[in-house]
Amino acid sequence: MYFASDNAGPAHPQVMQAMLDVNAGYAPAYGVEPLMDEVRTRIREIFEAPEAAVYLVATGTAANCLALATMAQPWQTIFASRFSHIHEDECNGPEFYTGGAKLTLVGTDDKMTAETLDAALRYEETRGVHGPQRGPVSITQVTERGRVHDLKELSALCDMAHSHAQPVHMDGARFANALVTLGCTPAEMTWKLGVNALSFGGTKNGAPGVEAVVFFDPEQAWEFELRRKRGAHLFSKHRYLAAQMNALLTDDLWLHSARSANANLARLAAGLRDVPGMEFHYPPQANIIFGALPRAAHRRLQKAGAMYHLLEGELEGDPDEPLPMRLVCDWSISEDNIDRFIALAHGQ
Amino acid sequence: MYFASDNAGPAHPQVMQAMLDVNAGYAPAYGVEPLMDEVRTRIREIFEAPEAAVYLVATGTAANCLALATMAQPWQTIFASRFSHIHEDECNGPEFYTGGAKLTLVGTDDKMTAETLDAALRYEETRGVHGPQRGPVSITQVTERGRVHDLKELSALCDMAHSHAQPVHMDGARFANALVTLGCTPAEMTWKLGVNALSFGGTKNGAPGVEAVVFFDPEQAWEFELRRKRGAHLFSKHRYLAAQMNALLTDDLWLHSARSANANLARLAAGLRDVPGMEFHYPPQANIIFGALPRAAHRRLQKAGAMYHLLEGELEGDPDEPLPMRLVCDWSISEDNIDRFIALAHGQ
Amino acid sequence: MYFASDNAGPAHPQVMQAMLDVNAGYAPAYGVEPLMDEVRTRIREIFEAPEAAVYLVATGTAANCLALATMAQPWQTIFASRFSHIHEDECNGPEFYTGGAKLTLVGTDDKMTAETLDAALRYEETRGVHGPQRGPVSITQVTERGRVHDLKELSALCDMAHSHAQPVHMDGARFANALVTLGCTPAEMTWKLGVNALSFGGTKNGAPGVEAVVFFDPEQAWEFELRRKRGAHLFSKHRYLAAQMNALLTDDLWLHSARSANANLARLAAGLRDVPGMEFHYPPQANIIFGALPRAAHRRLQKAGAMYHLLEGELEGDPDEPLPMRLVCDWSISEDNIDRFIALAHGQ
Amino acid sequence: MYFASDNAGPAHPQVMQAMLDVNAGYAPAYGVEPLMDEVRTRIREIFEAPEAAVYLVATGTAANCLALATMAQPWQTIFASRFSHIHEDECNGPEFYTGGAKLTLVGTDDKMTAETLDAALRYEETRGVHGPQRGPVSITQVTERGRVHDLKELSALCDMAHSHAQPVHMDGARFANALVTLGCTPAEMTWKLGVNALSFGGTKNGAPGVEAVVFFDPEQAWEFELRRKRGAHLFSKHRYLAAQMNALLTDDLWLHSARSANANLARLAAGLRDVPGMEFHYPPQANIIFGALPRAAHRRLQKAGAMYHLLEGELEGDPDEPLPMRLVCDWSISEDNIDRFIALAHGQ
Repeated sequence: MYFASDNAGPAHPQVMQAMLDVNAGYAPAYGVEPLMDEVRTRIREIFEAPEAAVYLVATGTAANCLALATMAQPWQTIFASRFSHIHEDECNGPEFYTGGAKLTLVGTDDKMTAETLDAALRYEETRGVHGPQRGPVSITQVTERGRVHDLKELSALCDMAHSHAQPVHMDGARFANALVTLGCTPAEMTWKLGVNALSFGGTKNGAPGVEAVVFFDPEQAWEFELRRKRGAHLFSKHRYLAAQMNALLTDDLWLHSARSANANLARLAAGLRDVPGMEFHYPPQANIIFGALPRAAHRRLQKAGAMYHLLEGELEGDPDEPLPMRLVCDWSISEDNIDRFIALAHGQ
Repeated sequence: MYFASDNAGPAHPQVMQAMLDVNAGYAPAYGVEPLMDEVRTRIREIFEAPEAAVYLVATGTAANCLALATMAQPWQTIFASRFSHIHEDECNGPEFYTGGAKLTLVGTDDKMTAETLDAALRYEETRGVHGPQRGPVSITQVTERGRVHDLKELSALCDMAHSHAQPVHMDGARFANALVTLGCTPAEMTWKLGVNALSFGGTKNGAPGVEAVVFFDPEQAWEFELRRKRGAHLFSKHRYLAAQMNALLTDDLWLHSARSANANLARLAAGLRDVPGMEFHYPPQANIIFGALPRAAHRRLQKAGAMYHLLEGELEGDPDEPLPMRLVCDWSISEDNIDRFIALAHGQ
Repeated sequence: MYFASDNAGPAHPQVMQAMLDVNAGYAPAYGVEPLMDEVRTRIREIFEAPEAAVYLVATGTAANCLALATMAQPWQTIFASRFSHIHEDECNGPEFYTGGAKLTLVGTDDKMTAETLDAALRYEETRGVHGPQRGPVSITQVTERGRVHDLKELSALCDMAHSHAQPVHMDGARFANALVTLGCTPAEMTWKLGVNALSFGGTKNGAPGVEAVVFFDPEQAWEFELRRKRGAHLFSKHRYLAAQMNALLTDDLWLHSARSANANLARLAAGLRDVPGMEFHYPPQANIIFGALPRAAHRRLQKAGAMYHLLEGELEGDPDEPLPMRLVCDWSISEDNIDRFIALAHGQ
Repeated sequence: MYFASDNAGPAHPQVMQAMLDVNAGYAPAYGVEPLMDEVRTRIREIFEAPEAAVYLVATGTAANCLALATMAQPWQTIFASRFSHIHEDECNGPEFYTGGAKLTLVGTDDKMTAETLDAALRYEETRGVHGPQRGPVSITQVTERGRVHDLKELSALCDMAHSHAQPVHMDGARFANALVTLGCTPAEMTWKLGVNALSFGGTKNGAPGVEAVVFFDPEQAWEFELRRKRGAHLFSKHRYLAAQMNALLTDDLWLHSARSANANLARLAAGLRDVPGMEFHYPPQANIIFGALPRAAHRRLQKAGAMYHLLEGELEGDPDEPLPMRLVCDWSISEDNIDRFIALAHGQ
């Protein structure tokens, strides 16, 4: 019963098999192997973006930091939600990679709105050489609270960014989960709305460790390559990255995997919905729940070995008091485990 | 016939198998999985260093940059050979990670000597607040020209560094190759001489992508962890890194692999030695040859599809003119291929 | 009628005279001239801090950035008011000098409180290696809205910082203005409360351009010197900096100058208080007013050539509508000009 | 008898007077005062460069670092003499301001030649994404050993840089001294040869502390302004910088001052030339001598209180052994002091 993170489960067997398959013979190092051409072509096709520049790295933080460093100047500020991964979970990586850019935290929760973004952008426009200069807008899709921006919300954010002449980055560590929720095409969720660069996640979606960075306009491709190398993120035996991503993109494995994760979460949410005292702090839309269960339920779950994040409070105390938690499903959670978790929450 | 790089061959099947073996069930993310404890314990045992801090990253450049950033201040200069990887092949990665430290290039070839190092250290000691301050000494073992420092050379370098109160880093991307050449223990080649921190290579030695950083004094361990995270080099699904390293360390695979690579190179060197016009620019001591063959031999080799680095010159021209090359053997090169390369060089 | 900034007025004649006086003969360069010893001694005496490390730079931003870079690690976050100069008016200078530290904006106005600071510090303590690590607290005294923290407020902030094991920096660009408002000693407003390092302003207080950085604990003195040099803030002809600061410290000129500025502001505030429609947005406590006057008053003032910051809105429109403004007095504003400004505001 | 540095003498009285003259009334802060317009116009006229962007800072290191950071990318390397100030005397300031660019040391002494520069540029062009990328060439005029590049040398260096598509920076901390040696126009020594940006020194030439940065192509002007502010080098009371530079440029004071310094050095060199044992290590061409005197002469000089840099060795020992020294003349050294120094060297 492991609901702690989509980083904690196994990789998909097809991805592992692809790494085995590529483990034969010799290939040029540093990303110029033929398999990377295949990956690039697939991503361009999937995104209907024949000119896109496509690169692979091994961590989501690397994808975000390198993309943002390519988009932002050191004297600029990047606009993002205050719950964004780039602010809360990258130990100042974006500040490091950009050479000291700032992050402006927009709004009060996991989503910026066009209005809060506009206000933040306007606030920074008035201080001449003294204040930080305005830089890119970074949208997290799925958000760090498990919500999915719909296309209208995304469009409004992109339009607002562009109306202030700023480019848009999308942190898509859970891009596939959002996509299957919305049921749109990758192009419809990105460049058709005005997204300029994308961190396209693979690791949370069934790979051991691979993320793509996609620039829909390839103008800064060479700069990105230099930043990746300088950041020590250019793999010598790059084929093992390419194999992972290629496997995900083959026969829509990436979509199947995300659909499984979302379906697992939906089953879990449905089962928990009528647990007495259960609260959902955000509507479950992808593969994460933020909510609360009464302490008694937590006690039963943890006693039974369920793994998940209890965000606050301790097991001792009033059994009815709700304690906040985060539950995450990846593609691999079994229905049995989900049902057992639900049953325990119910006290069955 | 692939002699271009030890980054171009396949990973060892046992390493791949270990990645498969670990691909089951759930494990905590970010390097706290039980398998990492096992890796740490093994490395401490192998190095007879029960207190050592041990970390994994995926690229050699990351290992070097993060280790050096932990050891050097931004206003210092790092002393290294002018042919060191950190100077020539990391696209200013050390300068980036240290926040602007300098590299002082010592000597005229791939090896510093105690004398050239002393002169360089003394030169920088005389400028007060104006000049760069002296910082760590970084030794590359095996050197970038394929030579192995013997223990006396290493000892003299370490002593010299310490006599100027500077710590020693060893870039051991090919640590195992050097070790089997010298026939000493890991401790004898490192901390017993005064090496303070080590980049311990796995990628060139049969893994898809894993390197360890070992601090023999664990005092800076937490700083390193923060630097690794901030540099986007902390893997979420870290068990796949741990599995690679663990496989290398199991049943001495890392030593077997390095012995194979060195033996392959020795066979190649022995076969080439009496090719008319063959020159060795550096004595072959590990798994790399720098030397020259007459242009006619290069023509035969390249026509037959041999892959290696021709360092200068073109195939058109005087057939007897020697053209410089680099030949590298990994563990996987077959004797057949080596012998075929030799035969082609001979014109057979 | 110049009320735009305390950066816009002339330097005090005694400061200029001191620069002339020092302009004779030869002196060692780079801050080791005898006059600097005198400055250091004076500051140590004034602050009752015989061990303090004392340095001079030419801009307030340099003082803040270099002090904070010495106190904060790149992976930390600095806690400050959202209206602090280091956040709003230094174009990412602190991020640059620290190598990418973050700023956490505490509270909603120009002052942190012990409670808002505590909440901010607690929020950052829970994310392990992922989040930014907690770093120094920076207090602006006088605040950027013209308010003065009283000793109790300062003490509570320092105690809170220290209870979380973080050091305290004070941005004292208007230190003297605050001091004369509180009527305490320099020691009572700094190290006796727990302030660890101070940016001690001279430029806004009658000098062409000099600020001191004072570390009450000299342990990091040498690091500061290296950071200052590397930041290009070590003056070769340093005696002209020392002369400025020495003149300010001679015969309490710095206190006289601050008292004049505060008295000027007090006269201005008193005269404006009964202008119909006059609002004070913050209580005038030092030498700055944030408030509003009806549009008609602004029209009269601006027509008469008064210089000050109209923060929002235009002169066209409803004559009774209040428009926000900032008014600053330096030591040099004449009573005539103040009275004329008041009269114009009154419509006389 | 002060020959230690051109940073150690007094400022020219006309420069001090200009600072007094400007110390009246109010002026907008941060470099938009009318006097800066005058300075800009004068520099554009003097350089016959009506479009040039012109900025003031207070230190030569700031001028160099900010200019180079605007010209170089973090992944590039800057080509400079191994005796350049940016390498030896700025405590890694260029590395800091560029965000981690490297310096490639060209040649073996204080001058690059077209040939050594070509070789260095070619060496760096062959490593793809791995090596540092090539960046600007920085020429020091006067060199750090007191030599002046003639126009032919400068032209050859500029042409070589441009033939490799790299821009040229000139570190002109002693620009005026070189100019009066060559007897050419400022345009002839800079943009007409292909110099793209210039650090134009004032501090060593009679000012308390002012340097201009001149970009002959103003395209990067705004970036420079942001870098200057972020680096904490934008003065609030900027008029005191402008006054210094304006005074230097009025009635050719900058040229008179440099002529005096050079004439003082010429007198000194002429007088020393026939001291037995006197050696000149570089031909004295501007206002610096590198050479040697017998130990006995040093003893007489130092006993008499002469101040200068003895570069190596001690006063105890063989009286005939030559000990190396550096002698610098500024505009203010009196003929009496020069003659007294000469007489002491001669043993008179």
